[in-house]
Amino acid sequence: MDAAEFRRRGKEMVDYVADYLENIEKRQVYPDVEPGYLRSLIPEEAPEEAESYEDVVKDIERVIMPGVTHWHSPYFYAYFPTANSFPSLLADMLCGAIGCIGFSWVCFFSLSVHPHICLSIHPSIHFYPACTELETVMLDWLGKMLKLPADFLAGTEGRGGGVIQGTASEATLIALLAARSKIIKLIQADHPDRSETDIISKLVAYSSDQAHSSVERAGLIAGVKMKKIPTDNKFSVRGDALQKVLEEDRAAGLIPFFFCATLGTTPSCAFDCITELGPICNAVEIWMHIDAAYAGSAFICPEFRPLLNGIEFADSFNFNPHKWLLVNFDCSAMWVKKRSDIIGAFKIEPLYLKHDHQESGNHSHWQIPLGRRFRSLKMWFVFRMYGLKGLQAYIRKHVGLAKEFESLVRADQRFEISADVVLGLVCFRLKGSNELNETLLKRINNARNIHLVPCQLAGKFVLRFAVCARTTESRHIQEAWCHISHLASELLQELPH
Amino acid sequence: MDAAEFRRRGKEMVDYVADYLENIEKRQVYPDVEPGYLRSLIPEEAPEEAESYEDVVKDIERVIMPGVTHWHSPYFYAYFPTANSFPSLLADMLCGAIGCIGFSWVCFFSLSVHPHICLSIHPSIHFYPACTELETVMLDWLGKMLKLPADFLAGTEGRGGGVIQGTASEATLIALLAARSKIIKLIQADHPDRSETDIISKLVAYSSDQAHSSVERAGLIAGVKMKKIPTDNKFSVRGDALQKVLEEDRAAGLIPFFFCATLGTTPSCAFDCITELGPICNAVEIWMHIDAAYAGSAFICPEFRPLLNGIEFADSFNFNPHKWLLVNFDCSAMWVKKRSDIIGAFKIEPLYLKHDHQESGNHSHWQIPLGRRFRSLKMWFVFRMYGLKGLQAYIRKHVGLAKEFESLVRADQRFEISADVVLGLVCFRLKGSNELNETLLKRINNARNIHLVPCQLAGKFVLRFAVCARTTESRHIQEAWCHISHLASELLQELPH
Repeated sequence: MDAAEFRRRGKEMVDYVADYLENIEKRQVYPDVEPGYLRSLIPEEAPEEAESYEDVVKDIERVIMPGVTHWHSPYFYAYFPTANSFPSLLADMLCGAIGCIGFSWVCFFSLSVHPHICLSIHPSIHFYPACTELETVMLDWLGKMLKLPADFLAGTEGRGGGVIQGTASEATLIALLAARSKIIKLIQADHPDRSETDIISKLVAYSSDQAHSSVERAGLIAGVKMKKIPTDNKFSVRGDALQKVLEEDRAAGLIPFFFCATLGTTPSCAFDCITELGPICNAVEIWMHIDAAYAGSAFICPEFRPLLNGIEFADSFNFNPHKWLLVNFDCSAMWVKKRSDIIGAFKIEPLYLKHDHQESGNHSHWQIPLGRRFRSLKMWFVFRMYGLKGLQAYIRKHVGLAKEFESLVRADQRFEISADVVLGLVCFRLKGSNELNETLLKRINNARNIHLVPCQLAGKFVLRFAVCARTTESRHIQEAWCHISHLASELLQELPH
Repeated sequence: MDAAEFRRRGKEMVDYVADYLENIEKRQVYPDVEPGYLRSLIPEEAPEEAESYEDVVKDIERVIMPGVTHWHSPYFYAYFPTANSFPSLLADMLCGAIGCIGFSWVCFFSLSVHPHICLSIHPSIHFYPACTELETVMLDWLGKMLKLPADFLAGTEGRGGGVIQGTASEATLIALLAARSKIIKLIQADHPDRSETDIISKLVAYSSDQAHSSVERAGLIAGVKMKKIPTDNKFSVRGDALQKVLEEDRAAGLIPFFFCATLGTTPSCAFDCITELGPICNAVEIWMHIDAAYAGSAFICPEFRPLLNGIEFADSFNFNPHKWLLVNFDCSAMWVKKRSDIIGAFKIEPLYLKHDHQESGNHSHWQIPLGRRFRSLKMWFVFRMYGLKGLQAYIRKHVGLAKEFESLVRADQRFEISADVVLGLVCFRLKGSNELNETLLKRINNARNIHLVPCQLAGKFVLRFAVCARTTESRHIQEAWCHISHLASELLQELPH
């Protein structure tokens, strides 16, 4: 395919994409194909000879769409939202065309594959591609939208700053590894004889018992103990709960070094009490990382910003603009107060660390992969074309829709609300047994008009209703509720009295 | 921006992308802006009010392009190629529109955040989105193109299979973690009393002294010792070299468990001798991972496939279609012989492992991030629109261009070739001191007509000339050589006799 054909086909694809998104609610939100359906629809091997674009494009509806869960359908209420906006799609087209790998990789290559070469190509190292600089500035823009403390911003002299990670899982892992490396250096400074593995065997990290599984997995990867702190009746970790475990573990000879607080837990969007937890972590020099993967986007609204109070005690903070801030996946924003903590964890040439510009410029030491796409373009397009006010309006609309659904549930005596509705998630259930609610959920998902997933709260089987799609309107909420309450009526009538 | 405006702007962007790629050689391949150039060109904060698309698009040339290294310019010969093709760009547009997160995340969510919920939403778990199924089938297609042994393929009953990772760094880390988990279980089966940290403290992994820095970093993250095996005069690890270190380490009470072989090293595209190394690893039950990040794409050509002989001894294999197979970043292909080794490393519910379909279907246990884009669409479009023959022709063209450059160097008595030219990389230098060659490279990069980076081979400063761009032709090679040899003449004339 040459540039001329790309011009034609690209414009057809733009129309296909627009058609898909404009008419998405006409599609069944949730596929009903059998496992392995796709393999039988396409050849077992790649073709020897090139096929025509027509042949390929025909297969999108024949092969792909029947197996797609339409995350951007206004009938999708499962999990949490994943962002999708037109400005972001345009920026991604540009990102693909430029197809640069990012300064970070360049510098990492020069320094770590050939450390001694570093100086020799110094002139080139001093040319900072747009890719890295735009990312640093966009993270500053976003940090200011969130009113992050100044020490999380890079600015021109800052020691902190932000970076784009692929997902919150990577951000948590990076923070944990940085904390691990920091505590090991700290202990070995006083006890040079103590081995790294001996120290690691005593390390213990903490998170909420409501925390996402990726936190536990980060501990698994880093090879450190990870303990879950019990939450209160609001599913929130409180200071005294952490304090208690810290004292027990210290007494047992363990070394607490990392606490991952969650703002907006996956099951119920609960908030750990970081104003209580932060001072405790700071007092005993435990790294506090805050994972606000979903909820973080809401903090750009003054009325929700108080949920982030206590951020000043954190060492690192992360949330996903690719969830709720209209920037397409992948774009997970992570900030740290001290870049040197992160960079130090990845063993960079001391010589290199002398160059502040490079420290802020080189992001490869901030992440697992070395390569990186020009992801900051998506943020730049979205922030400018929506403006802060447009983004705030978007968040408020989703929260309003969740409140609307909550009021419908509360108005029906057969149902109960299972957790405070703070943002765009409503946890609810039929008053009655878990089995009853499991059956209701099954019927909802099998009907395929809408898609929900469950969670477990205090031993109860609960349905999660998350406002997800950009195009969800009040009528969709009303429709979804009618459908749910109709299925509930059917179910309840079948029960023996 | 509504769908109607997106249709208009999207088509403008398609033309911008086509113009950019058609005229890329008119742009200076390599930027000459000062560090921090970008910050001063844009506001310090995001706008309150939405801006027009015109304002944003104007800034692409004003703000972004001056700081871009044009990786797809035929004057770019640095590092290794990064792929960019029109079919891949089209597929990425579709990927962005569908914007699904992939079954993997769904199932991981259901199982690990709410393990006991697994059964209750079992029906839904049995719906496999296209995202995961196409990925599994595309990795089978690609595996067949490479003539991988059947046990690396998923098929319908296979115990192996492939997955898309973001980068080779992630693939290496995943393989290392799987090997770490496997050896720990193995040892604890015989010595249930032995602690995980005690075992880890004795573990040792190996790679070539030419291996990419990301291999060393994987060891750092996993908290295990990582030793570099010395290479022979072809920069290749031989069996006896590994054997020697293994015996020493065993005698010292260490536990060797992982060897990362490299096919196509970063400095000189050297190949470890896996036909010698594989049997050794198999005999002593060391996990052998093969990293062929760059070279792997060439194995689709029968004449280069012998370079992969010995793959039958490997436990896992990885290469980057996003480097040399026309699939845009990110798309790093990884295969394993036993999916259960990888999945086991990430602690999944035993219940879950009983479902073979899910085992092959759920990719989140194969990677660090849980979310994943619909990246297999890019492979599907590229493989079909080029066909195997088209892809082979592309590889052969690049190798031919590298051979052409090699012959130009060999024809000039002032220069020497520093390593065998096997694929698209030529390592060369002026006969003479490292300083002389460092100066030559500086002048080449400062002139900015072309872009190269250096490497170090056996203590010598060497220039790397990698054929990178899809549009590189013989005339670009000739032009690049004239330029280099002209700068060399100038330099040599300045030298005192």
